[in-house]
Amino acid sequence: MRLDDHWFVACRSEALRDRPVAFTLQGVPLVLFRGEGGRPGALEDRCPHRNAPLSAALLRGRELECAYHGWRFDTSGRCVSVPGLTGPPKAPAFSARAFACLEQDDRVWVYSTPGAPPRREPFRFPNLAESGYATLHRVFRVRAGLQAALENTLDVPHTAFVHGGLFRTDRRRSEVEVVVRRFADRCEAEFIGEERPRGLAGRLLAPRGGVVTHVDRFLLPSIAQVEYRLGQASHLLITSAMTPVEESLTQLSVAVTFRLPLPGLLVRLVLSPIAVHLFRQDARMLALQSDNLQRFGGERFASTELDLLGPQIARLLKQAARGEVPPSPGEVLHEHRARMRL
Amino acid sequence: MRLDDHWFVACRSEALRDRPVAFTLQGVPLVLFRGEGGRPGALEDRCPHRNAPLSAALLRGRELECAYHGWRFDTSGRCVSVPGLTGPPKAPAFSARAFACLEQDDRVWVYSTPGAPPRREPFRFPNLAESGYATLHRVFRVRAGLQAALENTLDVPHTAFVHGGLFRTDRRRSEVEVVVRRFADRCEAEFIGEERPRGLAGRLLAPRGGVVTHVDRFLLPSIAQVEYRLGQASHLLITSAMTPVEESLTQLSVAVTFRLPLPGLLVRLVLSPIAVHLFRQDARMLALQSDNLQRFGGERFASTELDLLGPQIARLLKQAARGEVPPSPGEVLHEHRARMRL
Amino acid sequence: MRLDDHWFVACRSEALRDRPVAFTLQGVPLVLFRGEGGRPGALEDRCPHRNAPLSAALLRGRELECAYHGWRFDTSGRCVSVPGLTGPPKAPAFSARAFACLEQDDRVWVYSTPGAPPRREPFRFPNLAESGYATLHRVFRVRAGLQAALENTLDVPHTAFVHGGLFRTDRRRSEVEVVVRRFADRCEAEFIGEERPRGLAGRLLAPRGGVVTHVDRFLLPSIAQVEYRLGQASHLLITSAMTPVEESLTQLSVAVTFRLPLPGLLVRLVLSPIAVHLFRQDARMLALQSDNLQRFGGERFASTELDLLGPQIARLLKQAARGEVPPSPGEVLHEHRARMRL
Repeated sequence: MRLDDHWFVACRSEALRDRPVAFTLQGVPLVLFRGEGGRPGALEDRCPHRNAPLSAALLRGRELECAYHGWRFDTSGRCVSVPGLTGPPKAPAFSARAFACLEQDDRVWVYSTPGAPPRREPFRFPNLAESGYATLHRVFRVRAGLQAALENTLDVPHTAFVHGGLFRTDRRRSEVEVVVRRFADRCEAEFIGEERPRGLAGRLLAPRGGVVTHVDRFLLPSIAQVEYRLGQASHLLITSAMTPVEESLTQLSVAVTFRLPLPGLLVRLVLSPIAVHLFRQDARMLALQSDNLQRFGGERFASTELDLLGPQIARLLKQAARGEVPPSPGEVLHEHRARMRL
Repeated sequence: MRLDDHWFVACRSEALRDRPVAFTLQGVPLVLFRGEGGRPGALEDRCPHRNAPLSAALLRGRELECAYHGWRFDTSGRCVSVPGLTGPPKAPAFSARAFACLEQDDRVWVYSTPGAPPRREPFRFPNLAESGYATLHRVFRVRAGLQAALENTLDVPHTAFVHGGLFRTDRRRSEVEVVVRRFADRCEAEFIGEERPRGLAGRLLAPRGGVVTHVDRFLLPSIAQVEYRLGQASHLLITSAMTPVEESLTQLSVAVTFRLPLPGLLVRLVLSPIAVHLFRQDARMLALQSDNLQRFGGERFASTELDLLGPQIARLLKQAARGEVPPSPGEVLHEHRARMRL
Repeated sequence: MRLDDHWFVACRSEALRDRPVAFTLQGVPLVLFRGEGGRPGALEDRCPHRNAPLSAALLRGRELECAYHGWRFDTSGRCVSVPGLTGPPKAPAFSARAFACLEQDDRVWVYSTPGAPPRREPFRFPNLAESGYATLHRVFRVRAGLQAALENTLDVPHTAFVHGGLFRTDRRRSEVEVVVRRFADRCEAEFIGEERPRGLAGRLLAPRGGVVTHVDRFLLPSIAQVEYRLGQASHLLITSAMTPVEESLTQLSVAVTFRLPLPGLLVRLVLSPIAVHLFRQDARMLALQSDNLQRFGGERFASTELDLLGPQIARLLKQAARGEVPPSPGEVLHEHRARMRL
C-alpha cells in the first residue's frame, strides 16, 4: 500500500546537520541534506550517472558531491557540475529525482510523491507553543506495518495484557460507553464515564482519581492521538506521527504534550522512562505479530465491537491509497455507540 | 509435497509441560499445549483476532491466553473468552484452527489435516514393552527433505563412505543377494547371507560373528526401520519416525530397541554415542546434499540397482501426497532380487 | 546475462593442488580438480547420483570420489566406478557434466559452455616472458556485476574522487583529447597529450614527468587493460581478466606487467600495496553501487561524453550474450574524438 501526496516525518531537525542522511520512505531510498539557507532537501538516493548512493556523497557547501565521479546536485535535484566536462552539464537526464521537503515543528518532513508540488500541508503538532504546556519528544522504530502500528497505538483492550499493571489490568473492570465517530479524513473514539486509569500512569495524570475525558483519534495519513483530560488542571495529549519506512517497518515520531498539576521536570523524569517502557512492550508485540503475518503469508483478522478504530483505520488508509482524500475534515459522517468493560 | 491425513511426532511427551510450545509441521506453524486432563492440543500458531503467535501466549489453567488482547482458547480451538466484551464471544470466526493431537508411546502426535477427524491411528513403536528389550530414545533434526532423510536412513552403500570404519568399509566386500518387496503402504529390502557388519557396531551386535538377518523397511508416511537379528540372542531394531518440519528440515524421533547378549547398561553406554556420531555424519552429508539441491534449483538423480528403496520411497510418498493410501498393508505387490557387493 | 562459449580464469595454477576446489562460474557451481597428467578438469558440482557436491569429494589418484556413495569420476565427467555394483557402471546417465578446462599463463581457465568443444582459445596475458619485464599477480573479488567492474577499471574520471590524491585530484585539471575506437571484439580510448598522472603512482611511472601515452582497452569477453608508456624506458600494463562468478560477484585476475627505470624489487614493494589499496577503494564503491542497484531493482544510468568506454562495453557484452562474437579483431569499425578535463 502506497500513500501518495502526503507528508511524513523523516527525522528531528537536529538530526540533519552537515552530512547527508539516508532515509527510506515507503520503500524508496532517499538522501536528506541541507542546501541553500540550510533548507532541507530530499533526493532519490541514487546518482543519475552510475546509481551510486548519494547518501555516501560529501556535502560541499550547499551541494551534494557524489563519491564516485563527483557529480554535484542541489536540493532541487539539479546536476550543477560534472567534473571533467569541458562545458556545463546539460540538465534533464542528469537530474536526481527530488521530493518536496520542509521543516515544521522541529521536524524534517518529506512529501511522498516525487517531482510534484505538494497538494496539502504537513500535520501540525498541537499545543507545542501554548503556555503551561510542556512536551516530550521521542522517535521510535517498530518492525510492523503502518496500519498495525496505528491500531496498536489507539487500541485500549491490549493495554491490560501487553502493559499489564502499568495502566490497566484485567481485574476490576467496569463497563463504559464509547462513542465512535467517523469523518472524511479521521475517526475517533470517545470514552464516556471512564474512571482514571489504574496504575502509575493514571496516578500521574490524576493523583486524586476522578472521571476522565478520554479520546483516541486517527488522522490521515498516519497520525495517532491519545488524549486525556481531567477538569481544567490535567491535560495529556500523546501525538504519534508515523512514517511508513518499509512494508514492515514504521517510525513513530512521538510528542507527549502535557499540562499537569505537578512540576514539569518531575513529570518529564517519570514520563520519559514510562513512554520508553510502554513503547518497548508494544514494539515487541508488534514485531511478533508482524513476523507471524509474514510466516502465514498475510493477515486474517477477526474483529469484535471492542475493535473500535482498527477497522476504520483500515478503511481510511485504503481510501487514501486510492487517492481519495478530501481536502478538509468536514462533519461527522457516521457515529455509533459501543459498550466495553474497561 | 504435502502429506495430508497423517500423524507425525511433534515431540517427546516430557517436552510438553506447562508452557505452550511452538512447532512447525509441513511448513505450518503450530502451538502445542496441554488442556483438559493434561491432554495435548495443537492449534494454528496465530490468534484469529490480530494474528499474534499463540506460542507467545500464557497457559491459564487449561486455556491459552493470547499475549496481545487476552483472548482465550481451549484445545479444540474454541475462543472461550474475549476480555472487555460485555457478553460471551460468538464462536465461529473467533476460533483458532485445531489439529487432532494425542499422546502415544511417550510422544505427542499431530494429525496433519486441520479440523478433520483422523482417518487412521498413529504408528506404534514396536517392542517397547516386551521383556528382555531395552530402548534408547533420541530426537534429531536434519537440514534435509523428508524423502532424502528416509532414503539416507535406509541406504546401505553410503555407510562405507559416510560412516567409513564404523560399520562398513570399502574394502573386503563380498557379494550378497537382496530381496526387495513392495506393499501398498510400505517397502522393504531383506539381505540374504549378509555377514556380520564389520567395525564396532557389528561387534556389538554379534560378538562372535555369524550370518545376520537384515531388513531395511519404509512404512508410510514417514517411518524408517533398520532391523538386525542374529539367531535368538540378538535383535536390534532402529525405528525412526520422521516429521517433515519444513521443505528442507526433518525431525527424526529415533527409538533403538534391542535385546543383546550383553548387559543393557553397557549397550546403552556404547550405543548412545555411536548413534549420535552416525547421525552427525549423516546430517552433515544430508545438509550438503540439501544445500546443493537448493543451489541447482532442484534434484536430478540417477539410480542404479543398488538404490534398493530410494525409488520406492519416492513413489510411495508421491502416492500418499495424492491421498492414495490404502487402509491396510495387505500383501506383497511386487518382489524382485538384486545383487550387491557389501 | 550469460556469456556462452568463452574462457574465464578460475584460479591461479598454484591454487589447484591435491584437493578439489569449488568454483562458481556465471552462477553455475563447479568443482575443479587435477586428473590424468595433472591436467585440470571442471565438472558441475553435483554427483549425478544423489546430487551431493563433488567439491566435498576426495581426490583418489586422478579421480574424484563422491563423499556420499563413493562414485568416481575422471576429468571428462565419466563415472568410472560405482562401489557395490557387481558390474561396471553403464555410462551416460551416470556422467557428471564437464566443462572444458586448461592451464595457460599460470592460470586455470574454464570454458563457459558445458559439454562443448571450445570455439576459441583463452586470452593470452601479454609481455609475461619478454626480457626486461616483471609482473605482479593478484586475485581480487568484488561485489559487483561484470559490466560495472569492467567500466570501473577503465574509467578515468572516478580516479580523482575514489582514489583522490593517489594518482589524480580534482584540482589543477587540464584539457586533453581522447580518441575512442571500436572494433568487432574490443574498444579502446587513447589519451592524447596527457601529462604524467599526479600522485605517487605517476611518480613511479615517470619520475621526471613528461607526456605519457595512455590507452584504456576492453577486450571481449572480460579483459580490461590500462596501459601507460613514457618513451622507451617506462611501460606499465595492467591487465585484469575478469570472471563473472555470480550476477553481482566478479573475480579479477590482475597482472601488473612493467618495465620501469627503477629496480624491479623496489617497484614491486611499492606497487603491490598501492594496487591493493586502489582495489579496495574501487571494491567499496562498486559494492555501494551494486547494493544500490539491488535496492532500486535495476540500473538507470545517464552518460556524458566522459563515459568513453562504459556504453561500448555494455554494447559489446550484449552482443556477446547473443552469441555474436566475430572470430578475429579485424579493423577499426568506428572512431570518435572527445575532450575532457583531466
